[in-house]
This record gives sequence, C-alpha cells and structure tokens, in this order.
Amino acid sequence: MALLDQIKGPNDIKNIPQEDYDRLAEEIRQFLVQKVSVTGGHLASNLGTVELTMALHLSLNFPNDKIVWDVGHQSYTHKILTGRKDGFDRLRQYGGISGFPKRSESENDIYDSGHSSTSISAALGLARARDLRGEKRTIVAVIGDGAMTGGLAYEALNDVSNLNSNLIIILNDNNMSISPNVGGLSSYLNEIRTSDGYIQLRDRIHDSLYDTVPTVVKGISRAKQSIKSLMVPGMFFEEMGITYLGPIDGHNVKNMAKAIEDAKRVKKAVLIHVITKKGKGYMPAERRPSRFHGTPPFVIKTGFPVNTDKRESYTDVFSSEILKLAEKKPSLVTITAAMEDGVGLHPFHSRYPDRFFDVGIAEQHAVTFAAGLAAGGMRPVFAVYSTFLQRAYDQIVEDVCLQNLPVVFAIDRAGIVGADGETHQGIFDLSYLSSVPGMTVMAPKNGQELRDMLQFALTLNSPSAIRYPRGLAFTGLEERRAPIKMGKAEMICDEKGILLLAVGSMVKTALSVREMLKEQGEDCSIANARFVQPFDTELLRKAADKYSLIVTMEENVHSGGFGEHVSAWYAEAGINVHLLQIAVQDTFVTHGSPKELARLTGIDAESIVQKILGKLEKTKA
Amino acid sequence: MALLDQIKGPNDIKNIPQEDYDRLAEEIRQFLVQKVSVTGGHLASNLGTVELTMALHLSLNFPNDKIVWDVGHQSYTHKILTGRKDGFDRLRQYGGISGFPKRSESENDIYDSGHSSTSISAALGLARARDLRGEKRTIVAVIGDGAMTGGLAYEALNDVSNLNSNLIIILNDNNMSISPNVGGLSSYLNEIRTSDGYIQLRDRIHDSLYDTVPTVVKGISRAKQSIKSLMVPGMFFEEMGITYLGPIDGHNVKNMAKAIEDAKRVKKAVLIHVITKKGKGYMPAERRPSRFHGTPPFVIKTGFPVNTDKRESYTDVFSSEILKLAEKKPSLVTITAAMEDGVGLHPFHSRYPDRFFDVGIAEQHAVTFAAGLAAGGMRPVFAVYSTFLQRAYDQIVEDVCLQNLPVVFAIDRAGIVGADGETHQGIFDLSYLSSVPGMTVMAPKNGQELRDMLQFALTLNSPSAIRYPRGLAFTGLEERRAPIKMGKAEMICDEKGILLLAVGSMVKTALSVREMLKEQGEDCSIANARFVQPFDTELLRKAADKYSLIVTMEENVHSGGFGEHVSAWYAEAGINVHLLQIAVQDTFVTHGSPKELARLTGIDAESIVQKILGKLEKTKA
Repeated sequence: MALLDQIKGPNDIKNIPQEDYDRLAEEIRQFLVQKVSVTGGHLASNLGTVELTMALHLSLNFPNDKIVWDVGHQSYTHKILTGRKDGFDRLRQYGGISGFPKRSESENDIYDSGHSSTSISAALGLARARDLRGEKRTIVAVIGDGAMTGGLAYEALNDVSNLNSNLIIILNDNNMSISPNVGGLSSYLNEIRTSDGYIQLRDRIHDSLYDTVPTVVKGISRAKQSIKSLMVPGMFFEEMGITYLGPIDGHNVKNMAKAIEDAKRVKKAVLIHVITKKGKGYMPAERRPSRFHGTPPFVIKTGFPVNTDKRESYTDVFSSEILKLAEKKPSLVTITAAMEDGVGLHPFHSRYPDRFFDVGIAEQHAVTFAAGLAAGGMRPVFAVYSTFLQRAYDQIVEDVCLQNLPVVFAIDRAGIVGADGETHQGIFDLSYLSSVPGMTVMAPKNGQELRDMLQFALTLNSPSAIRYPRGLAFTGLEERRAPIKMGKAEMICDEKGILLLAVGSMVKTALSVREMLKEQGEDCSIANARFVQPFDTELLRKAADKYSLIVTMEENVHSGGFGEHVSAWYAEAGINVHLLQIAVQDTFVTHGSPKELARLTGIDAESIVQKILGKLEKTKA
Repeated sequence: MALLDQIKGPNDIKNIPQEDYDRLAEEIRQFLVQKVSVTGGHLASNLGTVELTMALHLSLNFPNDKIVWDVGHQSYTHKILTGRKDGFDRLRQYGGISGFPKRSESENDIYDSGHSSTSISAALGLARARDLRGEKRTIVAVIGDGAMTGGLAYEALNDVSNLNSNLIIILNDNNMSISPNVGGLSSYLNEIRTSDGYIQLRDRIHDSLYDTVPTVVKGISRAKQSIKSLMVPGMFFEEMGITYLGPIDGHNVKNMAKAIEDAKRVKKAVLIHVITKKGKGYMPAERRPSRFHGTPPFVIKTGFPVNTDKRESYTDVFSSEILKLAEKKPSLVTITAAMEDGVGLHPFHSRYPDRFFDVGIAEQHAVTFAAGLAAGGMRPVFAVYSTFLQRAYDQIVEDVCLQNLPVVFAIDRAGIVGADGETHQGIFDLSYLSSVPGMTVMAPKNGQELRDMLQFALTLNSPSAIRYPRGLAFTGLEERRAPIKMGKAEMICDEKGILLLAVGSMVKTALSVREMLKEQGEDCSIANARFVQPFDTELLRKAADKYSLIVTMEENVHSGGFGEHVSAWYAEAGINVHLLQIAVQDTFVTHGSPKELARLTGIDAESIVQKILGKLEKTKA
C-alpha cells in the first residue's frame, strides 16, 4: 500500500501524481475489503464512492471546506483520507471509530448522519451560515439516488433554489438505495443513465461539457431552456431551479475533480449527477450489493460470512409468519420503505407481488399510504426498523391513530442494535408510540410470541405496534403460550418476593436476573408485560400487595417509557409500592456490541441485580 | 338561494341545469361568506374551490367515489353539496360540524385530514385497496400548490408512478399556501401559469386539449417527449411518470368537469393542474387571502373582525421579543414553515430579510436546515405550531439533539387550540420532546416569562424548546420574575397544604384553583414548573415533606407528560407522596371553544378542584 501509506492526513492526497489515482483507488479498495472483512460494516456503498471521495479531496481544502454525507455509511474513504486509517481495526466497535461521520471524531466531519435524506437541508444551513458570517468555503452534500426519494431531500431541493450563492450537491447514482430503487424518480434517472446523451457525454467529457455552465448561470430565455431539454438531461432539477451537470462517470477521478472545480464557480446550487457502481471492484459485492450493504465479517475469497448462524432471527420469524397469515387473510398487504430484505419481506414479495409495496425511502408516505389502504378496507402491515419509524411520527398520530385505522406496525431492530450506534438504536419507540391515543403497543418475549402477537394484531379494529429486537429470536419459554388478551400480562413464574415485570426482550434478561438473585437468597417472580399500552392494571393492583418490590424492565429510554407509565399509575391510584425502573438512561447510546452497550446503559442482568440489591437495602432501611 | 335549496344531499347537483352553474357558485359563495362571518372559519380557500368542488360533484358519484382533501380546510363546499348545509350554523363549535373532513360526520368523507401533504399517499392507498378488492370507483386527491411543497407529497408522487390504474390528482394552484409560496416548485408553477401556453390553452380549452391524452397513455417515444416539453407544461410531473393535464381555469365548471371525465379514462395517475384564486368573489378575501385563511367572525361589508382585541397574544410577545434579541445577537436567524404571519415573524422578516427563512410547508427540512445553520455557527430559532412540529420528530432527535446543536424551538399553539379540533391540538409536545435526550423543555407562565425564556434559550449551547399557548398572553404575575435557571421551578406562593405544580399556561389556572380551594378551607401553594426537562428535583424533594398533596398540572396528554415524569422520579427516589396528575386524558380532543374543551378534558379550574377534593378525601380515609 505504497500510495496509501503516504496519506496521513487531510489534503495529503494532493501530493499524489495524477497518473497514480487509479492505483490509489485500488489500494483503498483493498484496504476497505480487508478491514471490513474482519470487523463487518458497510462495504458496497464505500467501494462505490472511492473515486468520488478522492475527487472531492483533490478539489476541496480540509477542514475549511465541508462535506455533508447523506446517511453517512459511505464515508469510509473520507475517514481514510482524513487520517483515520488506523482506526479501521476497531471500526464500529465500542470505543473505536464510528461507521458514520462524527463531529466528535474529527474536525473534518461537520455533520453527523445516519438517517436518510438530510444532507441537502444540512448543507443549505451550512451555506447560509457561511454567507451570513462572510466566510469563504465550499459546502458539498453527497446524496444517493435512494436517499433522493425521501421527502426531506425534496423539501430541501425546493428551498435550495432560493440560494444565491454556491452549494454543490453530488447525486451519487448507483440505481440502488439498499434494495434496488422504485418509483418515478428512479425511472427518470434510469432514462438519463441509459440515454444516448449519457454515452456521448461520457465519451467527450474532458472537452466541452462545462462550456454550458456560464450560459446556465447567466440565465437564458424560455425558448432556449425548452430547447435545452431536448439536448440535456436533468430537466427535473433544472425545473426546480437547480443547475444540473452530468451525468458523469463516477469512477473517473480527473473528470469529477474538474466538474467540482467548475461547479464551484456557479453562484447558486449546482447538482452534479455522478454514476457509480455499488460494490465496485470486489466481485461478490458487485454481484450482490444488497448483501454487502451492511455485512458481517466475511471470507474475502468467497464473500461468504465467517459465521453462518442458521438459527432464526426475529426477522425470520416475522418473515415466515406473515406468509402464513397472508394465506388465510386476503386483505393482508405489506409495506416496506426500501428495506425488503432487512425486514424479511422478500419471501412475501415473491409469493404475493400484488400485495407487497416498496415505497422507497419514504417512511412518512408508507404510513399515510397504509392509512389509505386501511380506510379502503385492507389490513396493511408496515414492517420497519424502530429508528426509521421515528420519521413518521406525525403520520402515526394524525393519519392512523386519529382515524383509528387498523394498521399494524411490525417494528424490527427495537432496543439496542449495536454497531450502527447512536442513529440506529431503537430506544425511543415505546415512548413515542405509547403516548398516542388508541395505539396498542406490544413486545414479544420470544419468537413464538411474535407469531401470536401478529395474529392477535390482525384481529384488532384499531392500530397496533409490535416491537422486537435485532438478532436471534429467543427460543426459551416456548411452552408458555397463554392466549394474547388485550392489555393483559402473562405470569411466567410466581413466587413471593420480587416481581420482575419485563417488556419483550427483557423477559429473557429477567430469567438470568432471577437465577442470580436466587443465589443471593432472593425469590423472584417474572411477569411478561406483553402490552405497554394499554398495560395490565389488574396485575399492578394485585402485585402491590403481593410483592416486596416491583421492577419494571424495558429496552427503551426511561422518559416516557413503560416504567414511567407504571409508576404514574400507582401514584394516581394512591397505591404505595416499592418500585424500581430499569430502562436505558436518557441519553444517546454509542456503537459497540449489544452486550457491551447493555452493560453501559445498565440494562444487563448484572447491573440489574446490583440495582435491585441496592434498592432492597434501601427499602429495608 | 333558490338553487342551493334544491341541494339536499349528494348528487343533487346533477339536477341543476348547466346554465345555472354560475348562479349556484354565486349562491354557495354568499352562503359561505354569511356563515363564516358569524362562526369564523377558513374562508379564502373555500371561496377559491367552489367551482372545482362543483365540477367534482358533477363528475363523481357519492358515496361510491371518494375524494381525499389535502389539509381539508377547503372542504366546505363539499360539505354543502353532501347535505350538511344546515350544520354551518354551528361550524367548528362544540358538538357542531367540523371545519375539516370527518369520517364520523358523513359517509361522503373517506379520510380525515388537517395536516398538509397527505392526500396523494392516502388516495394511492384507497386506489390500491380498490384494485385489490376488485371495486369500481373513482379516487381523487385534491392538493394545493402549497401542500405540494411538503416532502410527503413528493414521496407519494414518486410511488404513484408505479400505479397501473386510475387515480386523479387535482393540483389546486392558487400560488398560495397560507402565505405566498416559496421555492423552486413554486417558481416552476408560476412559469407555467404565466406562460403563453396557459393563456392559449385556457382560450381553446373546450376544443382539443384532451386529444393529447391517448398519446400520453400509449407511451410515446423519447424524441416526441422532448418535443412535447416545448409545447406542454408539466414536464416536472411527466418526468415523475405522471400524466399531466392543464393548466385549466379553476373557475370554469364545465371545462373542469370535462377534464375530470377525460382523466377518468386514463389507466394511471393523472394530475389536473387547476388555477384558482384564493378568496374568489369576496373582495376583502381576494385582496388579503392570508387574513381570510382562517378568520374570526367578521363584518361582511368591511371584512373587519367583529371583535378586535388589541391585547397582546403570546404570538405578539414572541414577535416583538425576537426582534429585540436579533438586534443584540447578529447570529440569530429565524425559520418558519409557511407560517410567517401565524407565528409572528412578519416584523422580523421586514427588518432582517437576510436572516429570515420561509422554507415552505416543510417542517422536516426546517429542522434539519436549522441544525445545519447551528453547525455553521448561527443561532436559529424555528417558530412553529406544536401540532406541525410533530412532523419533524425524527429530525429533532437525529439532527438537532444527537449533535447537541443549539437550535431554539419556539412552539406556538401548544395545548388546546379550540375550533380547529383534533388535528390541531398541541397536546403531545411535552411527551415527544421531553423523551429526547439533551432537549431542554420550557413553558412560560405569562408573556413576560416567554420573553425571559427566549433570552435564556439563546444563552444555551444545546437544543431547547419553549411551548406557549394560542391566544392572549397572560399578564398576571408579572411582578414574579425570578431569573430563569436551568431546571429550576419558581415558587409563586408558598403555604402549607397543597402544592399546585403547574406547567406554563396552567399557572393561570392554578391561581383560580387556589382561590376556589381557599373557599373550601384548603390552603394552596403554587409553583411554576418552568422546566419539564430537566425538571426541578430539588423542589420535588423538599415538597415531599412539606405538602399534603402535590398536584401536577399540564396542558398535554397524560402519557409521557410532566406528571408521569414527576411520579416516576418520586418512585425512583423511594419517596412516598400523595400525588395527583392533572393532564389531558389520553384521547384526541374534538373542536370547540378552549373553555369547553378544558372542561371536557378535565383541565379547567372547576374539574381540577373537584379532583383535588376527591383525592384529599381518599388520602384522609
């Protein structure tokens, strides 16, 4: 890695001779494949943006100039070129570097990302701040064509046209978000990509493409503009008031660097349309970019994961159960927001193509669309990651719950998710969902209960949400299968002493806590809360007399969570009990292994036992 | 009103002879002006859509066919034409008809609305439900050009292109949302409106405009498409894969009805671009459509409000204070999402045009843009209605709080807002904001305290929110002006007995409660909570010993609100207290006067006194 070794910090790339750009790109790709094969991480998107990032670093000056990376998982090369190469041995590990841009990690990261479609808004904010403060710097937003389907990106494009100074938007178009893209914008971009225009432009890119820029800037007559649409792709953006350049080959460093230089001279927002290949340069990733979007450690030679655990994840359970339910219930339809594989809807899509809808990275639309389907007599199930459902909070309140429409939310990756870190932890859903009137909120203790809850949810004539964690489905307690009844908890084991009242994944933890407390001579009962809204007040009433301490346990922030609801109910009922609330403390949770993070946030069995013993001591005193 | 009297239910309009359409439109306008002048309500948008609604009712069959009204405040004529004319005497009053479409009100309302940009998503859901169920019906979404700036509408447009059956989208283009529109899309529509094409098309609209439809449907070659963009406006939509018809004069019933008939035959999504005039036919509303967007009762002859209360509202207080603060702090900038007048930013806009940003109906972008501004060194203040900020929940979590950026949220219309009803009540913000780590959440007791809190917020290096109610600023207790300190409450009066711990607007209510309890021989202290996050735990600790009962009071739902936080804290601390939580019960709140709704939801002084006396009785027993 002779070239890469010369790059120790920002702007070092400028010392690399032009003729070595391809070799440097090659070295970066090797480095990425090697490192990610060990730690796991986002690979395909990073392999696709090596040359784009190099071009940006050749054209910009760090840290003065700023790049906002949309979603941010494609920022690995940027990290390498800004002196964080050595960090890749501990990529996404607790205490190691993040898989996303982080202000706290480097002055060359200006904006933390993780969720989609934010970059143009943020970059516009930075550009206006620059202008108001009289600073000189280039601001760039790098956004994928997938992220461009999110409404936030469009809101920003609409506003960007008001800007009278420079802002560069790079549309990194690989015809993929995580799954292949869908929808009108995608077809439109496809048409540009495959048009004669692109081929021609690509071939003569080094001569005169940018000669058109000054014309665009001066503002040309309506007639000319109309003629332009005959010649130049990108009218969609031009009609939004944004200067369009491209499409450009996203694996040609020199041409891109030139395009960026040209774009810098425009006194308004410029969009450079760059065509890249996801997974570029590593065959297994080129062939199956979805599989290498986020990958666990893998064998470089074959591309196969190092560990193949054949056991069922919660996603697998959902995936198979929803198929069974669909067979019995013709009104059942499913929705995903560009996460067909992630949420386990691929088999459903294959079997029921007419009843499956991938709406793109568009959670708001997914929810309002679901409300429309339900108003029209269907039974929609929206399968979505907890953290991304945050984006549709208003639609959950106004479109679904206010109209009391029977939409089912299948919420995957709820609780601590691990290596993706802050932006991906699903630790707010119990709070933001359970304060919405009319929403039933459930969490299963194991895989079987997820099946039962899905069945139950589809019998309701009102909205419901089932949240379940990332990873392997718990297979314990499968003999415990009391019928699901609205708002009723399930006793797992009943002894005098302490009651562990656990939500979903925490039932498994409660079993360990119980064992550990037994060794300390403390008896424990365990109740599986099942419902966070409405919760089992009958159980609470009975529990008040029976147990010396009631411990609520949940994988959610403290504020607005299950424990708060329970303590408020006791206070309201005027019942005095000894209560301990186990929850993620009210803070954002960094990246690391789920086990490390459980300990860090105090929701692992050991920490809980310590807290219980402490509480018992206090109450006895 | 000879013609209007003949319309007693849906489809009756079809018996009106063509030559009487203009007279009927005139009668409807008179009716609207008369009724709204008495009750108040949305006027300008309804005056603008009289003919459009007539055309829809001539072309569709109710209740089989369905219209989804975006935002929904333009549905008055639809209500008139579906047999709800008599309801207008009690429009927006408690127990009377709603100012928005309501499924519970009529089988001719298929979808409740209130928030912007939902109609295309919901209509697409209805269309797909129709197709899957093998039903035959026409589905129409009616959306304003303002609502079209919302990202949700764009997400839906992107998905609509995948539909292979009919769906009609009517773009009601009046070049206004509530304020005049901004941004790229708006300029684009403007260009269409003012182009020669529009004038020509409008003149020959009855002959051959729709001859082009079959060509569009068949799918034409790329070359032809490019030529088409020379001739036909609407390429923006065509490039998204949506057939575009228009622009059409939105005050010509016959032409619109014909366009709708033609559109019905297209086997995909069709957008009909209709040009209307907001306020049409009532001079004062034509001249000042913003003023007549939502109007209080007014004098028909002059257009002036019946009651002109010159006293300051909370909005006025914000409006004047932000000007003062801007003078001292050059980094202060303000943002609105198409609500310049509503939130009181008009004076700021006039005085500091470069530091004011209206981003359109785009709350998500407003928040992420604010985060970008803050990351760039500015101090952005986003002034927004509580209910609309719900749309930016994810951006508050991920963009602002996760990065700990000093964005100030000035949240107007928090709590019960009154006549706008369910979709506009600001009763969730304390819940959804206070569970986000790092967000400071405040509520002022009176106008002066709003000023103080704004000043305080701008000293913080972290996100903060100040929520204040609709209507007149409370002017009592102005002598109470202890300095604002992070997380500290303010004692208003201190006696033994009961502690009323009130949030924001409820301090005023607490004064009445105190008086009333005094008559019952009960002494009361009052504390002004000021902070909901972080809240004053020192006060809570002291209060536990001192008072016989602690009553939390908030204009927010119970679940996830201040009362829950307080009771959870006591439980966690192991401190037994008698606690009563006054909050809006966990339900959606209908329309009516704020006073009626306070009683209905149990947060008026009388209800609170009853609850306190009941609780005292219980605790003494």
